[in-house]
Amino acid sequence: MKNLEQIHRVKRGGHLSDHSWEKVSEILDAHFVGYLSSEREGIPVVLPTAYGRIGKKIYIHGAIKNGMINGILEKGIASMTVSILDGLVLARSAYHHSLNYRSVVVTGKVEVISDPEEKVIALKAISDQMLKGRWEEVREPSENELKATFILAFEAEYFVSKSRAGMPSDEKEDYELPIWAGVLPISESYQHAITDEGVESPIPKSVQHMELKNCR
Amino acid sequence: MKNLEQIHRVKRGGHLSDHSWEKVSEILDAHFVGYLSSEREGIPVVLPTAYGRIGKKIYIHGAIKNGMINGILEKGIASMTVSILDGLVLARSAYHHSLNYRSVVVTGKVEVISDPEEKVIALKAISDQMLKGRWEEVREPSENELKATFILAFEAEYFVSKSRAGMPSDEKEDYELPIWAGVLPISESYQHAITDEGVESPIPKSVQHMELKNCR
Repeated sequence: MKNLEQIHRVKRGGHLSDHSWEKVSEILDAHFVGYLSSEREGIPVVLPTAYGRIGKKIYIHGAIKNGMINGILEKGIASMTVSILDGLVLARSAYHHSLNYRSVVVTGKVEVISDPEEKVIALKAISDQMLKGRWEEVREPSENELKATFILAFEAEYFVSKSRAGMPSDEKEDYELPIWAGVLPISESYQHAITDEGVESPIPKSVQHMELKNCR
Repeated sequence: MKNLEQIHRVKRGGHLSDHSWEKVSEILDAHFVGYLSSEREGIPVVLPTAYGRIGKKIYIHGAIKNGMINGILEKGIASMTVSILDGLVLARSAYHHSLNYRSVVVTGKVEVISDPEEKVIALKAISDQMLKGRWEEVREPSENELKATFILAFEAEYFVSKSRAGMPSDEKEDYELPIWAGVLPISESYQHAITDEGVESPIPKSVQHMELKNCR
Protein backbone atom coordinates (compact mmCIF):
# COMPACT_ATOMS: atom_id res chain seq x y z
CA MET A 1 0.00 0.00 0.00
CA LYS A 2 1.43 3.33 -1.04
CA ASN A 3 1.80 5.95 1.61
CA LEU A 4 0.77 8.96 -0.39
CA GLU A 5 0.95 11.19 2.63
CA GLN A 6 4.72 10.82 2.34
CA ILE A 7 4.64 12.66 -0.97
CA HIS A 8 3.39 15.75 0.81
CA ARG A 9 5.79 15.75 3.69
CA VAL A 10 7.93 18.82 3.15
CA LYS A 11 11.44 17.69 3.97
CA ARG A 12 13.15 21.05 3.71
CA GLY A 13 11.84 24.47 4.67
CA GLY A 14 8.94 22.99 6.61
CA HIS A 15 8.18 26.41 8.06
CA LEU A 16 7.26 27.51 4.54
CA SER A 17 4.66 24.78 4.14
CA ASP A 18 0.94 24.74 4.89
CA HIS A 19 -1.31 21.70 4.70
CA SER A 20 -4.61 23.61 4.91
CA TRP A 21 -6.98 23.21 1.98
CA GLU A 22 -7.81 26.90 2.29
CA LYS A 23 -4.23 27.86 1.41
CA VAL A 24 -3.86 25.13 -1.22
CA SER A 25 -7.11 26.05 -3.00
CA GLU A 26 -6.20 29.74 -2.92
CA ILE A 27 -2.96 28.99 -4.80
CA LEU A 28 -4.72 26.60 -7.21
CA ASP A 29 -7.18 29.38 -8.02
CA ALA A 30 -4.43 31.89 -8.67
CA HIS A 31 -3.38 30.01 -11.82
CA PHE A 32 -4.61 27.64 -14.51
CA VAL A 33 -1.48 25.77 -15.68
CA GLY A 34 -0.17 22.84 -13.68
CA TYR A 35 2.70 20.41 -14.18
CA LEU A 36 2.19 16.65 -14.23
CA SER A 37 4.67 13.95 -14.91
CA SER A 38 4.50 10.52 -16.43
CA GLU A 39 7.15 7.98 -17.28
CA ARG A 40 8.60 7.62 -20.74
CA GLU A 41 11.33 5.00 -21.13
CA GLY A 42 11.43 4.77 -17.35
CA ILE A 43 12.22 8.47 -16.92
CA PRO A 44 9.65 10.81 -15.38
CA VAL A 45 8.99 13.54 -17.94
CA VAL A 46 7.13 16.71 -17.01
CA LEU A 47 4.48 18.43 -19.11
CA PRO A 48 2.43 21.55 -18.44
CA THR A 49 -1.33 21.36 -18.78
CA ALA A 50 -4.37 23.54 -18.17
CA TYR A 51 -6.60 22.51 -15.26
CA GLY A 52 -9.91 23.39 -13.69
CA ARG A 53 -11.28 22.54 -10.29
CA ILE A 54 -14.64 22.03 -8.64
CA GLY A 55 -14.14 21.65 -4.93
CA LYS A 56 -11.36 19.13 -4.45
CA LYS A 57 -11.82 17.64 -7.89
CA ILE A 58 -9.19 18.63 -10.44
CA TYR A 59 -9.93 18.22 -14.13
CA ILE A 60 -7.39 18.04 -16.95
CA HIS A 61 -8.06 17.33 -20.60
CA GLY A 62 -6.28 16.28 -23.71
CA ALA A 63 -6.76 14.79 -27.11
CA ILE A 64 -7.77 11.12 -26.93
CA LYS A 65 -5.17 9.44 -24.76
CA ASN A 66 -1.97 11.31 -25.37
CA GLY A 67 1.25 9.88 -23.92
CA MET A 68 1.02 11.91 -20.73
CA ILE A 69 -2.56 10.85 -20.03
CA ASN A 70 -1.77 7.20 -20.76
CA GLY A 71 1.10 7.26 -18.31
CA ILE A 72 -1.05 8.77 -15.58
CA LEU A 73 -3.84 6.26 -16.23
CA GLU A 74 -1.37 3.40 -15.86
CA LYS A 75 -0.32 4.63 -12.42
CA GLY A 76 -3.94 5.34 -11.46
CA ILE A 77 -2.73 8.28 -9.39
CA ALA A 78 -1.96 11.82 -10.52
CA SER A 79 0.23 14.36 -8.80
CA MET A 80 0.08 17.94 -10.05
CA THR A 81 2.31 20.86 -9.13
CA VAL A 82 1.33 24.49 -9.56
CA SER A 83 3.91 27.16 -8.89
CA ILE A 84 3.60 30.92 -9.11
CA LEU A 85 6.74 33.02 -9.18
CA ASP A 86 6.43 36.22 -7.12
CA GLY A 87 9.92 37.64 -7.19
CA LEU A 88 13.69 37.42 -7.00
CA VAL A 89 15.06 37.51 -3.46
CA LEU A 90 18.35 39.37 -3.80
CA ALA A 91 20.52 38.83 -0.74
CA ARG A 92 23.88 40.29 0.22
CA SER A 93 25.51 36.89 -0.31
CA ALA A 94 25.20 34.67 -3.36
CA TYR A 95 24.32 31.80 -1.02
CA HIS A 96 21.15 33.39 0.34
CA HIS A 97 19.66 34.36 -2.98
CA SER A 98 16.23 32.83 -3.31
CA LEU A 99 12.83 33.16 -4.94
CA ASN A 100 9.49 34.28 -3.62
CA TYR A 101 6.80 31.91 -4.80
CA ARG A 102 3.56 30.12 -3.99
CA SER A 103 3.36 26.45 -4.92
CA VAL A 104 1.23 23.38 -4.30
CA VAL A 105 1.45 19.67 -4.87
CA VAL A 106 -1.92 17.86 -5.05
CA THR A 107 -2.24 14.13 -5.46
CA GLY A 108 -5.06 11.65 -5.73
CA LYS A 109 -6.71 8.73 -7.47
CA VAL A 110 -7.49 9.19 -11.12
CA GLU A 111 -10.87 8.79 -12.77
CA VAL A 112 -11.83 8.97 -16.44
CA ILE A 113 -14.80 11.23 -17.12
CA SER A 114 -16.93 9.69 -19.85
CA ASP A 115 -20.40 10.98 -19.03
CA PRO A 116 -21.04 13.75 -21.61
CA GLU A 117 -22.72 15.99 -19.04
CA GLU A 118 -19.80 15.80 -16.63
CA LYS A 119 -17.46 16.32 -19.57
CA VAL A 120 -19.14 19.65 -20.29
CA ILE A 121 -18.95 20.58 -16.59
CA ALA A 122 -15.25 19.72 -16.58
CA LEU A 123 -14.51 21.71 -19.73
CA LYS A 124 -16.38 24.71 -18.35
CA ALA A 125 -14.32 24.42 -15.13
CA ILE A 126 -11.09 24.43 -17.16
CA SER A 127 -12.34 27.40 -19.23
CA ASP A 128 -13.43 29.30 -16.09
CA GLN A 129 -10.05 28.68 -14.51
CA MET A 130 -8.33 30.24 -17.50
CA LEU A 131 -10.74 33.12 -18.09
CA LYS A 132 -13.89 33.49 -16.04
CA GLY A 133 -16.93 34.34 -18.15
CA ARG A 134 -15.43 33.22 -21.46
CA TRP A 135 -17.46 29.99 -21.61
CA GLU A 136 -20.72 31.96 -21.81
CA GLU A 137 -19.44 34.04 -24.74
CA VAL A 138 -18.44 31.25 -27.13
CA ARG A 139 -19.82 28.28 -29.02
CA GLU A 140 -20.12 25.24 -26.76
CA PRO A 141 -18.53 21.92 -27.77
CA SER A 142 -20.39 19.82 -30.32
CA GLU A 143 -21.04 16.13 -29.77
CA ASN A 144 -18.07 15.20 -31.96
CA GLU A 145 -15.77 17.65 -30.19
CA LEU A 146 -16.80 16.15 -26.85
CA LYS A 147 -16.08 12.67 -28.17
CA ALA A 148 -12.62 13.76 -29.30
CA THR A 149 -11.79 15.18 -25.87
CA PHE A 150 -10.41 12.95 -23.17
CA ILE A 151 -11.01 14.16 -19.63
CA LEU A 152 -9.32 12.91 -16.56
CA ALA A 153 -10.15 13.93 -13.02
CA PHE A 154 -8.48 13.35 -9.70
CA GLU A 155 -9.50 14.19 -6.19
CA ALA A 156 -7.01 16.26 -4.22
CA GLU A 157 -6.79 13.63 -1.48
CA TYR A 158 -3.33 14.71 -0.40
CA PHE A 159 -2.04 18.22 -0.74
CA VAL A 160 0.50 20.67 0.54
CA SER A 161 1.50 24.22 -0.24
CA LYS A 162 4.91 25.80 0.09
CA SER A 163 5.42 29.53 -0.19
CA ARG A 164 8.08 32.12 0.44
CA ALA A 165 7.48 35.83 0.74
CA GLY A 166 9.44 38.83 1.96
CA MET A 167 13.01 39.99 2.21
CA PRO A 168 16.25 37.96 2.07
CA SER A 169 17.64 36.30 5.21
CA ASP A 170 21.34 37.01 5.22
CA GLU A 171 24.06 35.94 7.64
CA LYS A 172 24.19 38.35 10.55
CA GLU A 173 27.63 39.74 9.68
CA ASP A 174 26.64 40.31 6.03
CA TYR A 175 24.15 43.00 7.01
CA GLU A 176 27.18 45.28 7.51
CA LEU A 177 28.31 44.88 3.88
CA PRO A 178 27.72 47.84 1.55
CA ILE A 179 25.67 45.65 -0.81
CA TRP A 180 22.19 46.44 -2.04
CA ALA A 181 19.62 43.80 -1.05
CA GLY A 182 15.91 43.51 -1.56
CA VAL A 183 13.21 41.92 -3.63
CA LEU A 184 12.48 42.33 -7.32
CA PRO A 185 8.78 41.49 -7.64
CA ILE A 186 7.62 39.50 -10.66
CA SER A 187 4.09 38.86 -11.77
CA GLU A 188 2.36 37.43 -14.78
CA SER A 189 0.77 40.43 -16.40
CA TYR A 190 -1.88 40.63 -19.06
CA GLN A 191 -1.38 43.11 -21.88
CA HIS A 192 -3.81 44.65 -24.38
CA ALA A 193 -5.86 42.01 -26.19
CA ILE A 194 -5.16 41.57 -29.91
CA THR A 195 -8.29 41.07 -31.99
CA ASP A 196 -8.28 38.42 -34.73
CA GLU A 197 -8.66 39.57 -38.32
CA GLY A 198 -12.22 40.06 -39.50
CA VAL A 199 -13.74 40.20 -36.01
CA GLU A 200 -16.34 42.95 -35.70
CA SER A 201 -17.57 42.19 -32.19
CA PRO A 202 -16.15 44.39 -29.44
CA ILE A 203 -13.72 43.02 -26.87
CA PRO A 204 -15.97 41.16 -24.40
CA LYS A 205 -16.23 41.67 -20.66
CA SER A 206 -14.24 38.57 -19.74
CA VAL A 207 -11.23 39.87 -21.66
CA GLN A 208 -11.59 43.56 -20.74
CA HIS A 209 -11.57 42.51 -17.11
CA MET A 210 -8.09 40.96 -17.49
CA GLU A 211 -6.35 43.45 -19.82
CA LEU A 212 -3.42 45.18 -18.17
CA LYS A 213 -3.92 43.12 -14.98
CA ASN A 214 -0.81 43.07 -12.81
CA CYS A 215 0.98 45.70 -14.84
CA ARG A 216 1.66 48.69 -12.67
CA MET B 1 18.96 0.07 -23.18
CA LYS B 2 16.70 3.06 -22.86
CA ASN B 3 15.71 4.83 -26.00
CA LEU B 4 15.83 8.39 -24.71
CA GLU B 5 15.15 9.77 -28.14
CA GLN B 6 11.61 8.47 -27.67
CA ILE B 7 11.07 10.92 -24.83
CA HIS B 8 11.47 13.78 -27.25
CA ARG B 9 9.26 12.52 -30.00
CA VAL B 10 6.35 14.95 -30.06
CA LYS B 11 3.30 12.77 -30.51
CA ARG B 12 0.75 15.53 -30.89
CA GLY B 13 1.11 18.89 -32.60
CA GLY B 14 4.35 17.86 -34.25
CA HIS B 15 4.20 20.95 -36.45
CA LEU B 16 4.70 23.00 -33.28
CA SER B 17 7.92 21.23 -32.39
CA ASP B 18 11.52 22.05 -33.21
CA HIS B 19 14.51 19.85 -32.46
CA SER B 20 17.16 22.48 -33.16
CA TRP B 21 19.47 23.37 -30.29
CA GLU B 22 19.29 26.99 -31.41
CA LYS B 23 15.58 27.11 -30.64
CA VAL B 24 15.86 25.01 -27.48
CA SER B 25 18.68 27.12 -26.04
CA GLU B 26 16.81 30.33 -26.88
CA ILE B 27 13.85 29.15 -24.79
CA LEU B 28 16.12 27.89 -21.99
CA ASP B 29 17.70 31.33 -21.84
CA ALA B 30 14.35 33.09 -21.67
CA HIS B 31 13.77 31.72 -18.15
CA PHE B 32 15.51 30.37 -15.06
CA VAL B 33 12.97 28.03 -13.42
CA GLY B 34 12.56 24.49 -14.71
CA TYR B 35 10.44 21.54 -13.63
CA LEU B 36 11.95 18.18 -12.79
CA SER B 37 10.28 15.11 -11.48
CA SER B 38 11.32 12.25 -9.27
CA GLU B 39 9.43 9.33 -7.83
CA ARG B 40 8.01 9.33 -4.34
CA GLU B 41 6.10 6.23 -3.29
CA GLY B 42 6.15 5.17 -6.95
CA ILE B 43 4.41 8.35 -8.13
CA PRO B 44 6.32 10.92 -10.21
CA VAL B 45 6.13 14.20 -8.31
CA VAL B 46 7.09 17.48 -9.96
CA LEU B 47 9.11 20.24 -8.35
CA PRO B 48 10.26 23.60 -9.73
CA THR B 49 13.94 24.50 -9.46
CA ALA B 50 16.29 27.23 -10.61
CA TYR B 51 18.79 26.26 -13.29
CA GLY B 52 21.78 27.64 -15.10
CA ARG B 53 23.43 26.51 -18.29
CA ILE B 54 26.86 26.60 -19.89
CA GLY B 55 26.60 25.31 -23.43
CA LYS B 56 24.61 22.09 -23.28
CA LYS B 57 25.35 21.53 -19.60
CA ILE B 58 22.47 22.31 -17.26
CA TYR B 59 23.18 22.91 -13.57
CA ILE B 60 20.71 22.64 -10.72
CA HIS B 61 21.43 22.92 -7.02
CA GLY B 62 19.91 22.12 -3.70
CA ALA B 63 20.67 21.58 -0.06
CA ILE B 64 22.66 18.38 0.49
CA LYS B 65 20.67 15.66 -1.23
CA ASN B 66 17.05 16.67 -0.91
CA GLY B 67 14.38 14.15 -1.92
CA MET B 68 14.16 15.43 -5.47
CA ILE B 69 17.90 15.23 -6.06
CA ASN B 70 18.11 11.75 -4.52
CA GLY B 71 15.39 10.52 -6.84
CA ILE B 72 17.15 11.92 -9.89
CA LEU B 73 20.50 10.47 -8.82
CA GLU B 74 18.90 7.03 -8.49
CA LYS B 75 17.66 7.18 -12.09
CA GLY B 76 20.97 8.61 -13.30
CA ILE B 77 19.08 10.61 -15.90
CA ALA B 78 17.36 13.96 -15.52
CA SER B 79 14.61 15.40 -17.67
CA MET B 80 13.75 19.06 -17.22
CA THR B 81 10.85 21.00 -18.67
CA VAL B 82 10.79 24.76 -19.05
CA SER B 83 7.60 26.43 -20.19
CA ILE B 84 6.88 30.09 -20.78
CA LEU B 85 3.29 31.23 -21.07
CA ASP B 86 2.79 33.88 -23.75
CA GLY B 87 -0.96 34.29 -23.90
CA LEU B 88 -4.52 33.02 -23.93
CA VAL B 89 -5.76 31.98 -27.36
CA LEU B 90 -9.43 32.90 -27.33
CA ALA B 91 -11.29 31.18 -30.13
CA ARG B 92 -14.89 31.43 -31.28
CA SER B 93 -15.56 27.91 -30.02
CA ALA B 94 -14.74 26.55 -26.55
CA TYR B 95 -13.06 23.60 -28.25
CA HIS B 96 -10.40 25.66 -30.01
CA HIS B 97 -9.32 27.69 -27.01
CA SER B 98 -5.62 27.24 -26.49
CA LEU B 99 -2.48 28.80 -25.06
CA ASN B 100 0.47 30.51 -26.67
CA TYR B 101 3.66 29.24 -25.10
CA ARG B 102 7.29 28.29 -25.61
CA SER B 103 8.45 25.08 -23.94
CA VAL B 104 11.34 22.65 -23.95
CA VAL B 105 12.13 19.22 -22.59
CA VAL B 106 15.85 18.49 -22.15
CA THR B 107 17.15 15.13 -20.97
CA GLY B 108 20.52 13.62 -20.25
CA LYS B 109 22.85 11.71 -17.99
CA VAL B 110 23.37 13.11 -14.54
CA GLU B 111 26.67 14.00 -12.93
CA VAL B 112 27.44 15.21 -9.42
CA ILE B 113 29.66 18.28 -9.31
CA SER B 114 32.04 17.98 -6.38
CA ASP B 115 35.07 19.96 -7.57
CA PRO B 116 34.87 23.29 -5.66
CA GLU B 117 35.95 25.30 -8.71
CA GLU B 118 33.27 23.82 -10.93
CA LYS B 119 30.79 24.31 -8.09
CA VAL B 120 31.49 28.04 -8.15
CA ILE B 121 31.17 28.08 -11.95
CA ALA B 122 27.83 26.27 -11.68
CA LEU B 123 26.48 28.59 -8.99
CA LYS B 124 27.52 31.62 -11.04
CA ALA B 125 25.71 30.13 -14.06
CA ILE B 126 22.54 29.69 -11.98
CA SER B 127 22.88 33.24 -10.63
CA ASP B 128 23.50 34.66 -14.12
CA GLN B 129 20.46 32.83 -15.43
CA MET B 130 18.29 34.47 -12.78
CA LEU B 131 19.82 37.94 -12.89
CA LYS B 132 22.81 38.71 -15.08
CA GLY B 133 25.45 40.76 -13.27
CA ARG B 134 24.20 40.03 -9.76
CA TRP B 135 27.02 37.58 -8.99
CA GLU B 136 29.62 40.35 -9.31
CA GLU B 137 27.74 42.57 -6.85
CA VAL B 138 27.47 40.20 -3.90
CA ARG B 139 29.56 38.20 -1.45
CA GLU B 140 30.73 34.94 -3.04
CA PRO B 141 30.06 31.61 -1.31
CA SER B 142 32.33 30.67 1.59
CA GLU B 143 33.98 27.27 1.81
CA ASN B 144 31.29 26.06 4.23
CA GLU B 145 28.48 27.36 2.06
CA LEU B 146 29.97 25.53 -0.91
CA LYS B 147 30.18 22.33 1.14
CA ALA B 148 26.51 22.67 2.11
CA THR B 149 25.44 23.03 -1.52
CA PHE B 150 24.79 20.00 -3.64
CA ILE B 151 25.16 20.54 -7.36
CA LEU B 152 23.94 18.27 -10.06
CA ALA B 153 24.58 18.70 -13.77
CA PHE B 154 23.23 16.98 -16.83
CA GLU B 155 24.09 17.31 -20.49
CA ALA B 156 21.20 18.17 -22.77
CA GLU B 157 21.79 15.05 -24.89
CA TYR B 158 18.20 14.89 -26.09
CA PHE B 159 16.00 17.92 -26.44
CA VAL B 160 12.92 19.27 -28.13
CA SER B 161 10.97 22.50 -28.08
CA LYS B 162 7.28 22.98 -28.65
CA SER B 163 5.76 26.41 -29.14
CA ARG B 164 2.53 27.97 -30.23
CA ALA B 165 2.10 31.58 -31.33
CA GLY B 166 -0.54 33.59 -33.10
CA MET B 167 -4.28 33.66 -33.50
CA PRO B 168 -6.86 30.93 -32.83
CA SER B 169 -7.65 28.32 -35.48
CA ASP B 170 -11.41 27.97 -35.55
CA GLU B 171 -13.67 25.72 -37.60
CA LYS B 172 -14.35 27.32 -40.96
CA GLU B 173 -18.06 27.88 -40.29
CA ASP B 174 -17.39 29.46 -36.88
CA TYR B 175 -15.69 32.46 -38.48
CA GLU B 176 -19.18 33.69 -39.35
CA LEU B 177 -20.27 33.76 -35.70
CA PRO B 178 -20.58 37.20 -34.07
CA ILE B 179 -18.10 36.19 -31.36
CA TRP B 180 -14.98 38.14 -30.43
CA ALA B 181 -11.79 36.15 -30.92
CA GLY B 182 -8.14 36.98 -30.46
CA VAL B 183 -5.17 36.65 -28.18
CA LEU B 184 -4.69 38.02 -24.69
CA PRO B 185 -0.90 38.32 -24.31
CA ILE B 186 0.65 37.39 -20.97
CA SER B 187 4.19 37.98 -19.86
CA GLU B 188 6.15 37.75 -16.67
CA SER B 189 6.82 41.35 -15.76
CA TYR B 190 9.23 42.83 -13.28
CA GLN B 191 7.99 45.62 -11.04
CA HIS B 192 9.87 48.25 -9.00
CA ALA B 193 12.49 46.71 -6.73
CA ILE B 194 11.81 46.89 -2.98
CA THR B 195 14.90 47.71 -0.94
CA ASP B 196 15.52 45.80 2.31
CA GLU B 197 15.49 47.76 5.57
CA GLY B 198 18.75 49.43 6.49
CA VAL B 199 20.29 49.21 3.01
CA GLU B 200 22.04 52.42 2.05
CA SER B 201 23.54 51.31 -1.27
CA PRO B 202 21.65 52.41 -4.38
CA ILE B 203 19.75 49.92 -6.52
CA PRO B 204 22.50 48.26 -8.59
CA LYS B 205 22.72 48.01 -12.36
CA SER B 206 21.66 44.36 -12.56
CA VAL B 207 18.36 45.20 -10.86
CA GLN B 208 17.75 48.57 -12.55
CA HIS B 209 18.11 46.81 -15.86
CA MET B 210 15.17 44.49 -15.06
CA GLU B 211 12.77 46.84 -13.28
CA LEU B 212 9.52 47.31 -15.18
CA LYS B 213 10.67 44.84 -17.85
CA ASN B 214 7.75 43.50 -19.88
CA CYS B 215 5.26 45.93 -18.38
CA ARG B 216 3.86 48.08 -21.12
